[in-house]
Amino acid sequence: MFDYKLLAALAAVIEQGGFERAAQVLGLSQSAISQRIKLLEARVGQPVLVRATPPSPTEVGRQLLNHVQQVRLLERDLHRQVPALDEEGLPERLRIALNADSLATWWAGAVSTFCAEQQVLLDLVVEDQDVGLKRMRAGEVAACLCGSERPVAGARSLALGAMRYRALASPAFMARYFPHGFEPRRLARTPAIVFGPDDFLQHRYLASLGIEDGFLHHLCPSSEGFLRLAEAGVGWGLVPERQASAQLQRGDLVEICADTPIDVPLYWHHWRNGGQLLAQLTEHLRQMAPGWLVPL
Amino acid sequence: MFDYKLLAALAAVIEQGGFERAAQVLGLSQSAISQRIKLLEARVGQPVLVRATPPSPTEVGRQLLNHVQQVRLLERDLHRQVPALDEEGLPERLRIALNADSLATWWAGAVSTFCAEQQVLLDLVVEDQDVGLKRMRAGEVAACLCGSERPVAGARSLALGAMRYRALASPAFMARYFPHGFEPRRLARTPAIVFGPDDFLQHRYLASLGIEDGFLHHLCPSSEGFLRLAEAGVGWGLVPERQASAQLQRGDLVEICADTPIDVPLYWHHWRNGGQLLAQLTEHLRQMAPGWLVPL
Repeated sequence: MFDYKLLAALAAVIEQGGFERAAQVLGLSQSAISQRIKLLEARVGQPVLVRATPPSPTEVGRQLLNHVQQVRLLERDLHRQVPALDEEGLPERLRIALNADSLATWWAGAVSTFCAEQQVLLDLVVEDQDVGLKRMRAGEVAACLCGSERPVAGARSLALGAMRYRALASPAFMARYFPHGFEPRRLARTPAIVFGPDDFLQHRYLASLGIEDGFLHHLCPSSEGFLRLAEAGVGWGLVPERQASAQLQRGDLVEICADTPIDVPLYWHHWRNGGQLLAQLTEHLRQMAPGWLVPL
Repeated sequence: MFDYKLLAALAAVIEQGGFERAAQVLGLSQSAISQRIKLLEARVGQPVLVRATPPSPTEVGRQLLNHVQQVRLLERDLHRQVPALDEEGLPERLRIALNADSLATWWAGAVSTFCAEQQVLLDLVVEDQDVGLKRMRAGEVAACLCGSERPVAGARSLALGAMRYRALASPAFMARYFPHGFEPRRLARTPAIVFGPDDFLQHRYLASLGIEDGFLHHLCPSSEGFLRLAEAGVGWGLVPERQASAQLQRGDLVEICADTPIDVPLYWHHWRNGGQLLAQLTEHLRQMAPGWLVPL
């Protein structure tokens, strides 16, 4: 068997983003953590960490973390069957990467009963639409909700449905930039809001209107901030319909071009041997998702 | 004078998070970007970049970026006085680090008129309460809104006011965990929600109730997700009063212990020689903030 003390030290350094916090979490001194990492590297014969701020795993470090994540999930199953093993009686923590817009809209409502019934704590990691999978590949999360269908090795993907987005702006914004009604060709010179460098939704929308060049945009890597900027008339942008339903109803936001939604599919990626808890959450999401998402 | 083509390449690689995107943004080939970075390193006699994904600046790289940021702001002022210099007529972009809760609540409302009048585009970077300043020190942002008062070298800090937080949970959550009324001593075994490893607000709240040990908690690095989890009864947590006003009014969220707010001060950090636009935004915030924040 591996020496799991060493692997737990590696996992803590990566999960906590540093040696100092890892030491705090494990109740060890910082030099004890360093020694364990060094011992682990001596055993595997190569570095497991890139010593940066925050530290990141090397390729072999990633494989080890991936293994730790899966062992933890299996341990949880065992704890249920042999409760005495579970010394502290603490709820299990499930680390999940998901896109900001899901977290800002339907995620909490869909998983709340599961969390209460299973006494599970969530450790959520926000990742842009299509990049959460790299966290799975790195073994840093047990599951990932993202826009890519193709699973990583050892995992499965489940199509949950799609989030419907609409291009929205405030009435004052529309009056200022489109005093004579909406004209697609003026859109490139009308400030948009873009979530971040991985967000191509506004680009797709413009392309669907025949605009392929660059466009003026604010950058705002926050779902709620994005909505607030649109409401305040700072820019136009694609907002989940569900997130803006009250604003649309009140007329605080309007669709810049009538009935031109974009549907973004969501896939749930989970380890094939991720243990019972993960399998149950997957089943729970399969049942709940249709109530929150539009069909694919 | 420096060769600003080289410095612009460095800034683009850091701001875009890689050589490929930097090349796209500057309309150059990737090898042209690499050559410029190498030439820059030959000139300064040491590496300016750590070649990781994403690349990060070295100490000297940081100093160069800091300089680029300030030169850009000064150029903007010059463009106003000598409009012919401004070849493309594009609005200026202002890169600002701020805490997620400000972005989720009052920021957009406070700056919208400024953005419209000044034709400025925002490039917002979300940083936890007290760590946005490292972006200033790294020369990556023109200004920063955070909980620390002490300015970095070359910058000033302005006290804007405080955000008022209240410890909230859903009525169903309170009924489940506190069937006989609120008892502080049970709080450590009642799942909380914590924004991330730098969020000590829940710790402070527990300490104010005499609980100094660890406590069960979910991790959710999203303002809106945090509120959604609280509404869904997944945990209790400190939420900006302003963000939850509708939920408090409707009774969808209640204060777990009556009238125990925590006020978190906010400071606006800006470069001393940051140019006219930044000075105007600073003045604008000084005037607007009292309408959105509680006095310090």
